[in-house]
Amino acid sequence: MSLADYVIRKASQAKAAARLLATVPTAVKNEALLAMADALEAREAELLEANKKDVAAAGGLTKAAIDRLTLNTKRVTEMAAGLREIAALPDPIGEVTKVWQRPNGMTVSRVRVPIGVIGIIYESRPNVTADAASLCLKSGNAVVLRGGSEAIQSNAAIVKVLAEAGEKHGIPAGAVTFIDNPDRQVSTLLLKQDKLIDLIIPRGGEGLMQFVVKESTIPVIKHDKGVCHTYVDDKADLAMAAAVCFNAKVQRPGTCNAMETLLVHQAVAPAFLPPLIARYREAGVEVRGCPRTVALAPGVKPAADSDWGAEFLDLILAVRVVDDMEQAMEHIARHGSQHSEAIVTRDQERATRFLNEVDAAAVFHNASTRLHDGYQFGLGAEIGISTTRIHARGAMGLEELTSSKFVVRGTGQLRE
Amino acid sequence: MSLADYVIRKASQAKAAARLLATVPTAVKNEALLAMADALEAREAELLEANKKDVAAAGGLTKAAIDRLTLNTKRVTEMAAGLREIAALPDPIGEVTKVWQRPNGMTVSRVRVPIGVIGIIYESRPNVTADAASLCLKSGNAVVLRGGSEAIQSNAAIVKVLAEAGEKHGIPAGAVTFIDNPDRQVSTLLLKQDKLIDLIIPRGGEGLMQFVVKESTIPVIKHDKGVCHTYVDDKADLAMAAAVCFNAKVQRPGTCNAMETLLVHQAVAPAFLPPLIARYREAGVEVRGCPRTVALAPGVKPAADSDWGAEFLDLILAVRVVDDMEQAMEHIARHGSQHSEAIVTRDQERATRFLNEVDAAAVFHNASTRLHDGYQFGLGAEIGISTTRIHARGAMGLEELTSSKFVVRGTGQLRE
Repeated sequence: MSLADYVIRKASQAKAAARLLATVPTAVKNEALLAMADALEAREAELLEANKKDVAAAGGLTKAAIDRLTLNTKRVTEMAAGLREIAALPDPIGEVTKVWQRPNGMTVSRVRVPIGVIGIIYESRPNVTADAASLCLKSGNAVVLRGGSEAIQSNAAIVKVLAEAGEKHGIPAGAVTFIDNPDRQVSTLLLKQDKLIDLIIPRGGEGLMQFVVKESTIPVIKHDKGVCHTYVDDKADLAMAAAVCFNAKVQRPGTCNAMETLLVHQAVAPAFLPPLIARYREAGVEVRGCPRTVALAPGVKPAADSDWGAEFLDLILAVRVVDDMEQAMEHIARHGSQHSEAIVTRDQERATRFLNEVDAAAVFHNASTRLHDGYQFGLGAEIGISTTRIHARGAMGLEELTSSKFVVRGTGQLRE
Repeated sequence: MSLADYVIRKASQAKAAARLLATVPTAVKNEALLAMADALEAREAELLEANKKDVAAAGGLTKAAIDRLTLNTKRVTEMAAGLREIAALPDPIGEVTKVWQRPNGMTVSRVRVPIGVIGIIYESRPNVTADAASLCLKSGNAVVLRGGSEAIQSNAAIVKVLAEAGEKHGIPAGAVTFIDNPDRQVSTLLLKQDKLIDLIIPRGGEGLMQFVVKESTIPVIKHDKGVCHTYVDDKADLAMAAAVCFNAKVQRPGTCNAMETLLVHQAVAPAFLPPLIARYREAGVEVRGCPRTVALAPGVKPAADSDWGAEFLDLILAVRVVDDMEQAMEHIARHGSQHSEAIVTRDQERATRFLNEVDAAAVFHNASTRLHDGYQFGLGAEIGISTTRIHARGAMGLEELTSSKFVVRGTGQLRE
């Protein structure tokens, strides 16, 4: 079989499953998700064994990458818990989001339906396999999973366990389809199947995003980088500002919603920055400052031009003292990635202006950018944080994995 | 200047305008739209003169294409009326679609914001220029217009009038950007500007759709073909069914929501089809039937295999007698384009099953597929009918030209 035939066969299986899955009742989907969770735990040994092969073959990877790749009892338990949480969430499918009557007497309603087949292209972490499969399944979508080649044994084992448990509980075969051929050409071919796959969600680094956007003839929702800023206003509660800024940088620096640049109003910088920078240093944060910052906190490394707008994903922070909120907003417009942006101030008018005028998927007043997250927002679960402006922007929950359908009920209405 | 520089300069103008336009107040946008409408009427002579040049140059076009291209007083008046209608519609920007509080005390709201820069790539009709520009403007988006080369003089004149009137009334320069270089390579280059353009909406035939989907690295909302069916059940009110089926085919056959195939339950076909087919013939409709249809209505041309699933866009109709609703739904799943599908029946249970199980952007019970339209649905105006499953499916109004933003108001909330 040629690679093209292989890809078409896989995507066709998913499409056939999607048609059946669209009308599978909520109770069946939930029971299947619970059975899948049980199966992951019951067959942990199989998963760990497959994972060992991946880890053994992971010669050239960094320590951090090997850590992301590695499965253990705790991680399998977390995957199972994730599936049970998704089973407990309300089913978005069939929800009537709006209903209205027209002057000609016909009733129009808008109903949530599945998108169809969703392709997930991701890098090393095997837990994405279970997360993405369960979110797609709950929202009535078939999924085609294309994971990183370094996790192929682990991913194949997870999908085998999920699919077997699902099929025993009424989920059509093909609903969770795994691409088990690691050939890079397969991704390129997959991205051309616009008759069979309805949406591509890439999860990974910038190289992957660019590759997918360039090659895909299927709509793409990107989960791209976050260059997030916090602006501390001269009207800020400085104790609150310090807590928010510390949290936004340090709580988990490797995530897309962590703060990368701190902007501080010149009037409060002398009081605010030196103690906060000392606290950052204790936590191992490398601070790179503008000249005014360096003058206030001797020993701070001068920031290079490339530090503004950099996504460090690490314990590194750029700090700039700004003249006023205006200059902070200009800095954000120029260097931000429209992901998550925050202001700390007690001035409601300024806060409102910042929230209105700063263009980002999420804007925060007096809160940490780290809160930009499906769970934190109460969406129940998330497939990621979209940096695409259409369909779903920011944290994406189950509702964002649906499409819609107009349902019109008439009594013989015609177009005049 | 190279073509690439030309395209980047145009798209950059639009992006700069988009940032300003996002916060232009509703009253300013509405006043500008009214001024633009007035200007179109006041400068009609300019528009007609430019249009004459296009028509004179339109050597190889069909009569229908020349008709679509031609402007006259009536069409200019209609364009102006369209702008005034859009001025009267509610502004979607700033609308809070949802607001909720989290257990940690922070308030999350979801607010409509503009998408940013929308590229419209379209074929001959110059009225699209005014329609698309005004819908984008009202929804706070800058627009890059790339019309067909055969209408370039007309489109340039329309944009000149709109932009001059708009700029006098507070609309930033570049908000309506026109691509005045007819080189085909310009479209290809435009479709790669994913840092400057946020969404592409192609309007035209299948060749254009395929070109755009293949070349674009920008998200695309397709307005693709409609292969629409009406199924007449044995429990139908046959008089209503005849009226609905006549309307769906004849009222305006060249549109994407016109019926292309009629499916009739075998039990009512003998009573239903002969008089309806006679009526179709009187209206100039060429009927192409399955063997059972031909047996019922002698003289009907036998349908070829390629007639099932064909988008005729003309006074041609394929007719098939089916065993039951099951077979009708199978036919639709196999040959439909998931655009607009209808059932006529008095049986509520069957209607519900059809509406639930048939996969289409709009499904109708006892109504004509021709009603799938933004105006008919009460969306106020439409940019077209999306056949893409993400972002907006089916008739797209102003709300579908928006993105969203999470706005979080806190009191110092942190990620634990």
